[in-house]
Order: sequence, then structure tokens, then C-alpha cells
Amino acid sequence: MAEAELEEQEREEEDYRLDGEVVDAILQATEDNDATRLAALMEPLHAADIADLLEQVSGHERRAILRLWGREIDGDILTEIDESIREEVIASLPPEVLADAVRELDSDDVVDLIEDLEEPQQAQILGALDEPDRMAVEKSLSYPEHSAGRLMQREVVTAPAHWSVGQTIDFLRKAEWLPDQFYHVILVDPAHHPQGNVTLGRILSASRALKLSEITEPEFRTISVYQDEGDVAYAFNQYHLISAAVVDDDERLVGVITIDDAMAVLDEEHEEDILRLAGVGDDSSISDTVLETVRQRLPWLMVNLLTAILASGVISIFEGTIQKLVALAVLMPIVASMGGNAGTQTLTVAVRAMATKSLTESNVWRVVRREAIVGLLNGLAFAVVMGVVASFWFSGPHLGIVIALAMVINLVVAALSGILIPLALEKLGADPALASGTFVTTMTDVVGFFAFLGLASVMLL
Amino acid sequence: MAEAELEEQEREEEDYRLDGEVVDAILQATEDNDATRLAALMEPLHAADIADLLEQVSGHERRAILRLWGREIDGDILTEIDESIREEVIASLPPEVLADAVRELDSDDVVDLIEDLEEPQQAQILGALDEPDRMAVEKSLSYPEHSAGRLMQREVVTAPAHWSVGQTIDFLRKAEWLPDQFYHVILVDPAHHPQGNVTLGRILSASRALKLSEITEPEFRTISVYQDEGDVAYAFNQYHLISAAVVDDDERLVGVITIDDAMAVLDEEHEEDILRLAGVGDDSSISDTVLETVRQRLPWLMVNLLTAILASGVISIFEGTIQKLVALAVLMPIVASMGGNAGTQTLTVAVRAMATKSLTESNVWRVVRREAIVGLLNGLAFAVVMGVVASFWFSGPHLGIVIALAMVINLVVAALSGILIPLALEKLGADPALASGTFVTTMTDVVGFFAFLGLASVMLL
Repeated sequence: MAEAELEEQEREEEDYRLDGEVVDAILQATEDNDATRLAALMEPLHAADIADLLEQVSGHERRAILRLWGREIDGDILTEIDESIREEVIASLPPEVLADAVRELDSDDVVDLIEDLEEPQQAQILGALDEPDRMAVEKSLSYPEHSAGRLMQREVVTAPAHWSVGQTIDFLRKAEWLPDQFYHVILVDPAHHPQGNVTLGRILSASRALKLSEITEPEFRTISVYQDEGDVAYAFNQYHLISAAVVDDDERLVGVITIDDAMAVLDEEHEEDILRLAGVGDDSSISDTVLETVRQRLPWLMVNLLTAILASGVISIFEGTIQKLVALAVLMPIVASMGGNAGTQTLTVAVRAMATKSLTESNVWRVVRREAIVGLLNGLAFAVVMGVVASFWFSGPHLGIVIALAMVINLVVAALSGILIPLALEKLGADPALASGTFVTTMTDVVGFFAFLGLASVMLL
Repeated sequence: MAEAELEEQEREEEDYRLDGEVVDAILQATEDNDATRLAALMEPLHAADIADLLEQVSGHERRAILRLWGREIDGDILTEIDESIREEVIASLPPEVLADAVRELDSDDVVDLIEDLEEPQQAQILGALDEPDRMAVEKSLSYPEHSAGRLMQREVVTAPAHWSVGQTIDFLRKAEWLPDQFYHVILVDPAHHPQGNVTLGRILSASRALKLSEITEPEFRTISVYQDEGDVAYAFNQYHLISAAVVDDDERLVGVITIDDAMAVLDEEHEEDILRLAGVGDDSSISDTVLETVRQRLPWLMVNLLTAILASGVISIFEGTIQKLVALAVLMPIVASMGGNAGTQTLTVAVRAMATKSLTESNVWRVVRREAIVGLLNGLAFAVVMGVVASFWFSGPHLGIVIALAMVINLVVAALSGILIPLALEKLGADPALASGTFVTTMTDVVGFFAFLGLASVMLL
């Protein structure tokens, strides 16, 4: 690279992140119908930032940008575009632009691009691929959704273990194609069973005469093609893998997964956890339309309405009691709210521990016991505080004693449901994050109202 | 590697994850005081799994394992051990074991190991290092916490851009030391300014005569040594980086960050987000003691108690109204609960979008407007449902109309506070996840009770 080019590159570093001024300039150029200026503004942007830009502008602005500049869209940009607008963008592209864009991609990127598309768009993209690439993609699509088989790329660099470093380098220099990024040469036997990894750094620093089998990594893990992608991401993070060989049922090498894909999965899994805990559809995106958003959120609000009516039913049992002592209506939401909060705390820690596999058979009962004790201690602390507050507020100790007792009961119940409900969901094969929040707060509302009003009707009337 | 060793390796793959039976066998061997059997059981385990094991067993069991087997602990295991038990484990090790363990680590791992330790333990570990390593670690510790400077390793492989591939390979073969893992050769000018990256794959596959400057990567990004680690992780994920050069204020190369470290940071950032949203201290761990857990959770429960009392204060304004119509006490938690849920949904999507930088100046008002419309539509839907339910439940349309109106008001307020509160926190320089949940539910409780009871006292009495 010439000195001038290097300087050019250094200047580009300044364009590190999509900033507001650039976006404004792009929208202005679009509004002015100035294709040349638009192209000049888009040119220095990274594919991922262009994808973000298309996601963040309004639908109207997006269509205008695509009309003026859509022919410049390449494979890298397509793979970065969020699912919520992917179909729309693909549909807007001229067939030859789309064909060129997908032809430059590795097989795993094509799979990622088309797996959620409708049949006709899928067929259009598959049709644009060369025969061997199309077969590779179709093979990957034959593996279950969210499996290692969907995530892997089929382009793999392998060598027999008996090769020398020199032989390997000569082979790589002559290779007709190589993946864009690869970090290991995978050693395979004649039946294509993977046997070890050699890092490129070791190959580069070893003398030509050394055999590959003498410089393999001390550890080597393979991943089954049917393994869930969440487990794959966990393994990469846990064992600091950079790339991992993927094998079929006969332990034959069928592909390789690299850490950048695993990192993207880890990010998605977290997104799912956090959205599910809040009762939001896990494919929510900031660029969804109003109707999509309503569709995602309404079902969980409906579930919440049913459980809230259930809790109201508990209150209605005690209508007579409240009639006699209206202070109960004032205080009862406090007991329920504290239970809901404490339960959510426990639930979140439990769901997170389950995601990182740190809540296991060997410590589950100790953790449950600890949560129960924590619930009891927090319950006692807030029983004292709230007991004193209520006694002063309603001039007399009776209400204070009732709310103190109800607080202890509800915080212990909150702690236990916060951990036992996600555990039960996991035992049943469901995602522990899914709907846990609703179940836990239903429990703490019902128990909170029942304990407080029930104790009041027994002790005060 | 001989064929037999390869087979040995393949069998080790079976020990993929820490399973319950292995843990049981380890605890049994520990109880039997059988050091030989314990060592044999631990030997095939990965350092990360051993660290998890020590975290998951009880304090008593952990001390027994460390007594029998602690001398085997090496640097890899130490760096994997969770902060919650790190001090305890380090304190239990004989000084010479600790010294050997830390001497084998790269500088970034030593920094990660000691940055949260108390002064005396820090000094003990620094004292065990060789002079140049100690200086490297001390230099890294001089950068702010959570900065790129703390995350990077100082061991970097560089070459001048004018070198040929052959020269570079010869240099690497002669190099006295090389990092365990490296993925790029960083091109530097004589003043040590980084100018580009060459992947090891390109070096391996290019002919010896080519210059490095002819095979640099098309894109090159550097990271400031003061950049926040969260932003570093974002950049790795967004731009699919594998390693990135870190530069000081004079744009001089001072270190390199690799993707495995960035992935670990991404994972921690998510953990913080999810725990903060639930009002749990963000250093919570499943292996915390009861007292630590109480200490982490009590402050947020206290905040919640204050806000719950505030909401109760709103109810007490309407004591007279409730006295006359006790059905209000039955229905009022429904309005508050629906608002709290809808607000949490919006909040979670907003916090997540802010973490992934997809909520920006260019779309923020469109997103706020969308949330308000979604709140209105959901409010109208549940106004109809709840209006009908209440009319039948309390035989007459009046309560139904009141709860329907209150529902619309509260769901719009929920939507707006769900997005405006985290935005305001970020503007103020606070973490948008922190305490947002409490603020949002306070808002929806207060507005929910006030709207419902206020409308009731105006319209029904």
C-alpha cells in the first residue's frame, strides 16, 4: 500500500461511528434527489453502519434512499440488515444487483440472509447462486433452525496431520480459494474426521521441517452439527474458542464456526432473555411498525390483565373488611408491590444464572435455601420499617402488626417463586425467562393481598 | 502428535461440560480425603469448568478441595475464577504456587486478575512478576477502570509495511516470544504509529516476494486506550473485528485487544443491564453469601418502599371515595398493574436499543411517537375489555366507563415514561438501565391510582 493510501485509511478511522450530522447530510442529499452526493456520503461508511442507517430512518426516507442508491448495495450490507426491514430492502433491489450481492457471500452468510425469507424471495436468491454454492446453502438449510449447522460455514481449511509446515504453506499459496477469515488449519484423517487444530500463528513461526502434528493446540473441541446455537455461543465464551470444527453424526468434519458468528448469537440470546423477561416478543426491534409492536405486546398484556383480575378477585373476597377499615385499601398495594419487586430481583438473578449454566444440580438447593433466607431477612427488615410507618400513619399498632406479618410472608413467597418458577419452566422444557415475570408477580399479588387482608379480617375485626 | 495422543484428545471431547456425576465424584473424593483420586478427576477438566466448580460448591466444600488440590491451580484457572470467590482462593494458595501461576499469564490477564483485589494481595502478585511484566501490568493499571487500556494486552506483533512476506515469516520464526494467540501482524511506521493489519491467513497464502503493504486488510480501525470497554465490545460486534490495535493520545500503538476479551465484556455488559433493570446490584453472583445478597437487594427494595408509600398516599387522598364505593379498591390494582407492565415493556425495548446504539438522534422522536401511539392503541383495546368486564362484574356501566378512561390514560403515560425516563437518565450521564424500572412503575402506580380514583370521585359521586 502506498503512503498516500495509508494516510487515506487513517483519515477514514475518524468516521468511526454513524453520527447525527452524517445522517442529516444523507437525508438532505436524498431529499434533494442528489444521487452523486448521496453516493459520496455513503461510500466511507461501514456496511454495518449503512444497515443501521436504513433501519433508523423512516420507511419513507428508506424507500427514497434505496431508489437513489440501491444499486450500490452489496452482500456485506445485505447480511447486516435487520430482519424487520430485510424483505422490504431485498424486494426493492433490481434482480441483477441482488444476484451480484449474494454471489460474493460465504455460505453461512447466505443461510443467515435467507432462512427467514418467504419462499419466492428464497428461491430468487438460491437461483442467483452458482451450483456448488447453492447446494452448500441448501445443505445448511436442511439442518434445524438455530442449530450449529445453520451457523457454520462450509468453507474449511484442512490438512493431514503428517504434513510438514513447509508443505502446508506451499499448499495454502497454491490454493484456488480460501475463506476470507480463517484462524486454524484443521487436521483431518483420510476419512475426514477432525483430529486437531493448528493456529496460523504456530504455522508462521515454526520451521518448515516441523510436522503439523507436532504443533497442534493442546485442546481441541468439536461441535455437533445439531447442537443448539445458544450452547455453541456458550462454549465459545466459556472456553475462549476462536473457531470450532463442526462434525456430523459420523464425526466427519462438515464445517467450521468462527467466533464472530458466536458473538452475534450470544448478543441475540441476551436480547431474547431481556425481552422475554419483560414480556415482549423476542423479535422486537426499534424499527418495527406500530401494528407489529401492538401485535407483540398485546398478548402479554392480556395475560397480565387476567392475572390482575385474579388478584382483584382476592380483594373482592374482603370487600366487607375494607368497607369497615378503608385504611386497608391504602396499604394493600405496598405489600403487593414489595413482593413483586423482590420476586423480580430473585427471578432475574436465577434466569441469568441458568443462562450462564452456573445454576446446576450441585448447587440448586443451596441457592433456593439462600434465596429463602434472603427473603426472610428482607421481609423482617421491611416488616419493622413498614410496621412503624403504618402505626404512626394510622395512629395505633394494630395495622402495623398486620402489615409487618404480611410483608414477611410475601417476601418469602416472592423469593421462593422467583427461583422455583423459572426452574419449573426449564424442567418442562420451556425457556425459563418466558412468562416467568407474569407468574411471579401474579403469585406475589395474590399472596400479598390475601395475607394482608386475611390477617386484617382475622386480627382487627 | 502421535496417533495415540490424537485418540486421547478425541476422548477428552466427551468431557465437554461439567456434569453432575463428575461433580459428585469430585465431592466424594474430597470427603474421602483422597488427593490422588481428586487430582485424577480434575485433570481432564478445562480451567473454566474448574473455576465454575469452585464457584458452585459450598464454601465448606471449596475450602476442602483447595486444601487437597490447591497446589495444582495455575494461571488459567485463576483468571477464570469469579470475583466473588477470587480473594478467598488466592489467599488460600501457598505463595510459590501463586507466583508460578501468575508468571505464565499475558499482561491483560494479570490486570484482569488483580484490578479488583485489595492492596496487599495486589502487591503480593505484582511482586511475583518479573520486572518487565510488572511494569507492563502497572502501566495498564494506570489507565481508568473499564477502559481499553485495562483490557488490552501489551504483547503485540508488528512489522514495517515495506517488509516482504518472506522477511516477516523469517522474523516470526526467529522471534524469542510471541503471544499465545494472535491473528494479525500490525503494520507500524518508525514512530510506532499503526497503519494497517495483515491477517495471518493472507501472509500464509501469499508468495514470499509480496510486500505486506500489498496485502493489508481493506479496513483498519484503531481504538483509543481511554475508550470505554463497552464501546470496544460494541465495535467488535458491529464491525466483526477479530483484534484491534490500541493507540495512545499520540496515535502510537500501545497494545492490542482480541475478540475473546471483547466477547467477555459484551457478556458482562448484558449481565449489568439485565440485573440493573431488575434493581439488583450488578456484581451479583449465584455464589454470593446471604449477607452479600441482602446488601445488594435491600437498597432497591427501600427505594421501592418509598415509591409504594407515595402511591399509597395518592390512594389515601380518596379514602372517602373508596368508603362510599368499595368496588374501587377491588379494581384499582388492575389499572396500576397494566400500566406497570406496559411501561416495563417499553422500557426494556428502549434500554436494549440504547445499548445497541439503534436509538439515535435521527430516530428518537419517531420512536417516542410510535410508543405513544402503541400505548394509545393498547389502552383503547384494554379499555374496551376492562370496561365490559367491570360493567358486568359490578352490574352497571358507570364503573366500566371510569376504568376504561383510566386505562387509556395510564397506558399512554406508561409508554411515554418507558421511553422518556431512560432517555433522560442517559442525558444526565447515568446508565439508562439503572433505576429506570422503579421510576417507571412509580409513575404508572401514581398515575393509575390518581386517574382511576379521581375520575371515580368526579363522575360517580
